[in-house]
Amino acid sequence: MTHFEDGSAVMVDVSEKADTVREATACSSLLLPAPVLAALKAGASAKGDPIAVAELAGIMAAKRTSELIPLCHPLPLSKVAVRGELDEATGRVRFTATCRVTGKTGVEMEALVAASVAALTLYDMLKAHGKGMVVAETKLLSKTGGKSGPWRA
Amino acid sequence: MTHFEDGSAVMVDVSEKADTVREATACSSLLLPAPVLAALKAGASAKGDPIAVAELAGIMAAKRTSELIPLCHPLPLSKVAVRGELDEATGRVRFTATCRVTGKTGVEMEALVAASVAALTLYDMLKAHGKGMVVAETKLLSKTGGKSGPWRA
Amino acid sequence: MTHFEDGSAVMVDVSEKADTVREATACSSLLLPAPVLAALKAGASAKGDPIAVAELAGIMAAKRTSELIPLCHPLPLSKVAVRGELDEATGRVRFTATCRVTGKTGVEMEALVAASVAALTLYDMLKAHGKGMVVAETKLLSKTGGKSGPWRA
Amino acid sequence: MTHFEDGSAVMVDVSEKADTVREATACSSLLLPAPVLAALKAGASAKGDPIAVAELAGIMAAKRTSELIPLCHPLPLSKVAVRGELDEATGRVRFTATCRVTGKTGVEMEALVAASVAALTLYDMLKAHGKGMVVAETKLLSKTGGKSGPWRA
Amino acid sequence: MTHFEDGSAVMVDVSEKADTVREATACSSLLLPAPVLAALKAGASAKGDPIAVAELAGIMAAKRTSELIPLCHPLPLSKVAVRGELDEATGRVRFTATCRVTGKTGVEMEALVAASVAALTLYDMLKAHGKGMVVAETKLLSKTGGKSGPWRA
Amino acid sequence: MTHFEDGSAVMVDVSEKADTVREATACSSLLLPAPVLAALKAGASAKGDPIAVAELAGIMAAKRTSELIPLCHPLPLSKVAVRGELDEATGRVRFTATCRVTGKTGVEMEALVAASVAALTLYDMLKAHGKGMVVAETKLLSKTGGKSGPWRA
Repeated sequence: MTHFEDGSAVMVDVSEKADTVREATACSSLLLPAPVLAALKAGASAKGDPIAVAELAGIMAAKRTSELIPLCHPLPLSKVAVRGELDEATGRVRFTATCRVTGKTGVEMEALVAASVAALTLYDMLKAHGKGMVVAETKLLSKTGGKSGPWRA
Repeated sequence: MTHFEDGSAVMVDVSEKADTVREATACSSLLLPAPVLAALKAGASAKGDPIAVAELAGIMAAKRTSELIPLCHPLPLSKVAVRGELDEATGRVRFTATCRVTGKTGVEMEALVAASVAALTLYDMLKAHGKGMVVAETKLLSKTGGKSGPWRA
Repeated sequence: MTHFEDGSAVMVDVSEKADTVREATACSSLLLPAPVLAALKAGASAKGDPIAVAELAGIMAAKRTSELIPLCHPLPLSKVAVRGELDEATGRVRFTATCRVTGKTGVEMEALVAASVAALTLYDMLKAHGKGMVVAETKLLSKTGGKSGPWRA
Repeated sequence: MTHFEDGSAVMVDVSEKADTVREATACSSLLLPAPVLAALKAGASAKGDPIAVAELAGIMAAKRTSELIPLCHPLPLSKVAVRGELDEATGRVRFTATCRVTGKTGVEMEALVAASVAALTLYDMLKAHGKGMVVAETKLLSKTGGKSGPWRA
Repeated sequence: MTHFEDGSAVMVDVSEKADTVREATACSSLLLPAPVLAALKAGASAKGDPIAVAELAGIMAAKRTSELIPLCHPLPLSKVAVRGELDEATGRVRFTATCRVTGKTGVEMEALVAASVAALTLYDMLKAHGKGMVVAETKLLSKTGGKSGPWRA
Repeated sequence: MTHFEDGSAVMVDVSEKADTVREATACSSLLLPAPVLAALKAGASAKGDPIAVAELAGIMAAKRTSELIPLCHPLPLSKVAVRGELDEATGRVRFTATCRVTGKTGVEMEALVAASVAALTLYDMLKAHGKGMVVAETKLLSKTGGKSGPWRA
């Protein structure tokens, strides 16, 4: 376990690591039962856009990752973007979050937090319209920068 | 959309609702590829317990739900418990979170946030051991209290 | 000075006050020089709504009032709504924020913080389009509840 | 709208921008009706200084700008100073806030948030002494650093 | 261990407990080596009062106790007061913090956090004037309310 | 007073200081009366480790130092470790916290906050087992980096 020293949790030392541009992209999907999907589509045609609210919540959550995840380093994020897209065929909204930093550690957790909180925010706004929503498949899609080089799911 | 008034997002008025005891339980699972599962098992036999860290992170996140989810009401939570259990057969750690409040709104979102952040925290601590982890199936398991009565998935 | 005891600042004791429904409405306006106004109008016709972002930021800020204003009591807000309206004739966007609580103190500061942060958020999104914006006239419009009864500006 | 990409809000990418010393100064004024002004003057002659409390609240708020303003970048501020001055002739307290950073983006929003929260904090401490206070003229006074060079109102 | 269930930490259930007025008072002292004491006394005779800054920091920290102490319940504090007093004879500043709430749990931790953060804040402001300061004797002085009745150290 | 300019508190300008690796170590001890010590030892032999919870709380608090201590600069901490050790002979748990940063100011306050919050967190978990605990001797043990060079208590 890299996050433990002699049995105690530790925010590991990265002071010797180089400051490089690092980016990560993650996704999270909210599965919508039929009545909830119908409500979302009806609402989206009126004024008021719950997906836009969820995207913004994701951006703001990314900036608080080090408060939520105990052993994450605080990072001066240089970019955060979250996009939600409704796939009517499969009845889901898929949020994709990209974070970037010039720093000593990667931003996977920031991207994962952003995508997760976006999905949960949409859940909150739709929960009056039906039970049974599920946040599915929160995962990393790609990362670049740092010693280990680029990676893609 | 209940969370919009004339196109603007709103934290809906609950001032007329009764203060009742409300409880919700949610879960979230982290799927571990074989090398990561092996590392977790090896680490758990040594001192230092990443699942305990994740549980604690979930408890703390529950208390910050209204900061993360823009239209959630701040609630004086009266109980939060998060438990993570490793299921070796399916290679996953499943976090179950229960929140309780005496208040005017339910605590589904608090339980979902707690379970999600617990899973993401474990992800953070295990990510040095391998790629390909997925947070799967974050969902509500049950809720009680409030006008709509008990519900179970 | 009601907020000082023997020269030390104090969050004054409200434990003897009754829990009543209290509401307050405040406003804040952002004055837009002509080029900025033009950019806002051009952007609003495309996808992406900066006023909606500002409204949401105001709602979220209201919930953090007691963190920002040192002697404010933490309050379980039961409603927050923020609306921004563009008045092209006078070149301003006026944000109106309403907060409600069942509690021992009023919510004037919450409404004022919500309106102010909404105006500042719009400022942030428009500042690339020109200098000279001003946040003007942040003030209370009305309050109800509590011992002192209703008040209107 | 620079803060939107294909209709979604985004915290824009600044990773290619240079780290330079940037500074901004903003002001915000609280207008005091006569009874409130009298109370402030009476209090200031006793022990306990509400303007000092407001200055400190402004400094602390500056550090939280990126939590309040959704699309602001987190910045490692290297200086924050807030000064409030009572102008008896015009019945107002004017707060001037200066922020500095070595970073990739400017600190206008930090200075504006600091000045605004200082004015709102004084409002909170004086509101028991009379109705009708107004926060007026929150605006940028000057900025230096960055590609666009120095600017002065 | 009351804060553990089957080995997992838990924010214990207080939903069945009565809402009563509860108060706690705690203290924390900062011991000042002679050169630091001299600097404090010299500064206090000029404008600018570091003890007042520390008192305010303590008040603000009390409101964030449930964010800092993982298993503390969020509480709607109804009063917080912090007072620092210089005892020249023993070369220390002693901070006394009192918190009050109408709630289901006591406010010992809130009072202890307030006194501790006040002492640490003064430490921060004086540390340029000499080494060797110590925060000593942070402890509860008294508590009232709740099932266990009044207690005094 | 270095933290005041013309009587107003200020977060002092460090923009001209060099970015160097800086480290600080601080400690804080919780003194346990006999019944509390007995409860801790009994609990530690069962599942559930309150010292581990306290260590984690200390790590998380270190990251929020600039929110708690008004005139502290926000810092991108590159390492935080907190270790608690029970000394049965003297009936105390001593927490030692080490923080590291590559930055313009030292991390004494971060280490002191981490150690203090760890001690207070253990206090919270043990307070049901007896009165009379005291947090004693919170102090700096050593620091390195920066213009003033290494220092050791």
